[in-house]
Amino acid sequence: MPVQLCLMVFIFVVIIIIFSGEARSLKVENILYRGKSEFQEILVFESSIYGKVLVLDGLVQLSEKDECAYQEMIAHLPLCSIPSPKTVLVVGDGDGGVLREVSRHPSVEHIDICEIDKMVIDVSKKFFPRLAVGFEDPRVHLHIADATEFLRLAPVGPAQELVEKPFFETIARALRPGGVLCNMAESMWLHTHLIQDLISVCHQTFKGSVEYAWASVPTYPSGVIGFLLCSTAWPPVDFKNPVNSIEKLEGALKHKRELQFYNSEMHSAAFALPSFLRREVSALHESSTPARQIGDK
Amino acid sequence: MPVQLCLMVFIFVVIIIIFSGEARSLKVENILYRGKSEFQEILVFESSIYGKVLVLDGLVQLSEKDECAYQEMIAHLPLCSIPSPKTVLVVGDGDGGVLREVSRHPSVEHIDICEIDKMVIDVSKKFFPRLAVGFEDPRVHLHIADATEFLRLAPVGPAQELVEKPFFETIARALRPGGVLCNMAESMWLHTHLIQDLISVCHQTFKGSVEYAWASVPTYPSGVIGFLLCSTAWPPVDFKNPVNSIEKLEGALKHKRELQFYNSEMHSAAFALPSFLRREVSALHESSTPARQIGDK
Repeated sequence: MPVQLCLMVFIFVVIIIIFSGEARSLKVENILYRGKSEFQEILVFESSIYGKVLVLDGLVQLSEKDECAYQEMIAHLPLCSIPSPKTVLVVGDGDGGVLREVSRHPSVEHIDICEIDKMVIDVSKKFFPRLAVGFEDPRVHLHIADATEFLRLAPVGPAQELVEKPFFETIARALRPGGVLCNMAESMWLHTHLIQDLISVCHQTFKGSVEYAWASVPTYPSGVIGFLLCSTAWPPVDFKNPVNSIEKLEGALKHKRELQFYNSEMHSAAFALPSFLRREVSALHESSTPARQIGDK
Repeated sequence: MPVQLCLMVFIFVVIIIIFSGEARSLKVENILYRGKSEFQEILVFESSIYGKVLVLDGLVQLSEKDECAYQEMIAHLPLCSIPSPKTVLVVGDGDGGVLREVSRHPSVEHIDICEIDKMVIDVSKKFFPRLAVGFEDPRVHLHIADATEFLRLAPVGPAQELVEKPFFETIARALRPGGVLCNMAESMWLHTHLIQDLISVCHQTFKGSVEYAWASVPTYPSGVIGFLLCSTAWPPVDFKNPVNSIEKLEGALKHKRELQFYNSEMHSAAFALPSFLRREVSALHESSTPARQIGDK
């Protein structure tokens, strides 16, 4: 039995542990890059079925085959929910995929991106040109900086603070009226308690609507990723029924490259939640309270 | 490097290859059962994060944590789409989970199940009582038989024929007017060409509506599974907007055990398809043709 398993190890050269008790492995055709930046270990390999894969500190960040799901959803869920987005701040996204998606919106005039690790950008430009194309848009302004400093947060520690209360408070203060936040928010199958915490903090911090959505991303833990959408007290934002349909924006469907995952049906469907999640995350029920009632308390 | 990987093999005792080029591994807390029936190898183990897992011939069939998604969707997508389902045939489902879900419907009077391997049923009754409870319903009639023979198909080969044209033709003949088929239908991320073939065959065979839906199932390849829904020529069936809402059926939400995954919002959302799938599976476009036009050709 052990012999048999070890043989398999030679076939699957990279084994990536993604969660205690679960591992996913992708067959490696070719290792394209290995490096260590000031912040993390960077690995790029060619997998046999998901195309090229970017791994940071042992965690899959994206694969060419399924990056569309994450990048398109995290950009268009918020930007299609408000009438005419003008200014966008992207935190992280050294690969450029979110920038590529944000730039589909003709109303957007200015895009700031704050990425701490320049090496991720350089690696992406070399190995993932279909994502890094996002940096080429003249509306993009790159800031190589710690997001907590960029946002004038008191620096406390590493990336963890990007999902903690002071971070959300800073974002809430920075948003203009009608502005929205879309934050990556865990797996509904694995992290219901973290989702509960995130939603509770955002209900306290933002005074408008707080909604949870999800998408299928095969190379992420349990094959899904969640998104938390938050709006300011006024005007009200109905995230589930987008006012700014991507299909009606001139040139948006094919800008840089054709949309692969997102469409208006997928937008609304992303807010349909399994019955277990509705029950286990009690904070979800607050979402049904009209925005103004929460805001005025 | 190989040493490090071999150490990991000892932690993850069971490595399950689920698709050429990709593998998923679950940490094994305890192996509960190993056996070999006339048809296949059967393995039951306790995993650390997905509960007990049933494996047939090396392929994960279900885990306690995520079985709800598959069992509930494959049962309620068809049964909630028609007004008052009376008679149901379940092919396979030796674990009983689909029976548990079908029996939520008070209108159902008779449930036939055709499972080829009695040992799967026995193992399920011993290790998965929350699924095997489905066999206890007095409306259930168990047939230990080859489904192709049960349906009076000429026997040709193994399970493969359950997704081939003669099988669908037999089902189409067996359906009463207004009857529907729900068939497991591959992963949208991995098998678009197979989905294309399945939908094309079903468009030729069934004379009503043919629709594709999907659900998140973490322990299946690429973390999703598809469903193909087909109806007879008349009366028309609108799979996307269920007429027989589960929330309105007396006792259905808590029958045997509370619904975990399915609800009416998840039902409609399951038919929202990523843009790449819409484009790659040209047969999907036929779905938008009104049922009677296809049927009358």
